[in-house]
Amino acid sequence: MKKVVVQVKILGDGVLTPEDLPQLLGRVSEVISDGGVEAVVVSGRLPVWAFCALTHHFHPRPLVATFEPRIGKGVCIASHTPEVSVGDLIPVDDAEIVDIEYLPLHLQ
Amino acid sequence: MKKVVVQVKILGDGVLTPEDLPQLLGRVSEVISDGGVEAVVVSGRLPVWAFCALTHHFHPRPLVATFEPRIGKGVCIASHTPEVSVGDLIPVDDAEIVDIEYLPLHLQ
Repeated sequence: MKKVVVQVKILGDGVLTPEDLPQLLGRVSEVISDGGVEAVVVSGRLPVWAFCALTHHFHPRPLVATFEPRIGKGVCIASHTPEVSVGDLIPVDDAEIVDIEYLPLHLQ
Repeated sequence: MKKVVVQVKILGDGVLTPEDLPQLLGRVSEVISDGGVEAVVVSGRLPVWAFCALTHHFHPRPLVATFEPRIGKGVCIASHTPEVSVGDLIPVDDAEIVDIEYLPLHLQ
């Protein structure tokens, strides 16, 4: 299965607040579709709630993972793919990279 | 809307590995249904991928949030409820508490 690493970078001071979430998800939607045949691995220095909102956003995808820097791989958190289960490690060496930059509301 | 705070505590050294995820989700399912009319706020000292797997697990719920200790409230990460949006803060003072304890695989 093809994979896309969605790398989210928060610009400025890097501080995201919950009010940023709708606009952040909107920004992500401009760059990459929530649905599609590729697996999505979400990556970034983000609060837990931003990660959870992003992985939920991509739930139409066949496989959703979060990148775990300590392992250097994705960890599958949701799968509609029989051969991959929740908790499985997802190598990303062969993945396409999609960079998304977002300026927090308090700096806009 | 009624709310449930699902407090997940990792026993022993508190270290969870990705291989724990299927069993952790199974343990959660024994204690509380993934669907239901109450909002769910997931809380705990957990890796990002565990939070994401847990919030995905509860996606049939009308509202899913993660508890943000710095704010003392939940942050909505997914909503099927018209009056609540992603990013909204969810007070939990009036919520039911469900405690879930899990012993990691490497200590079983």
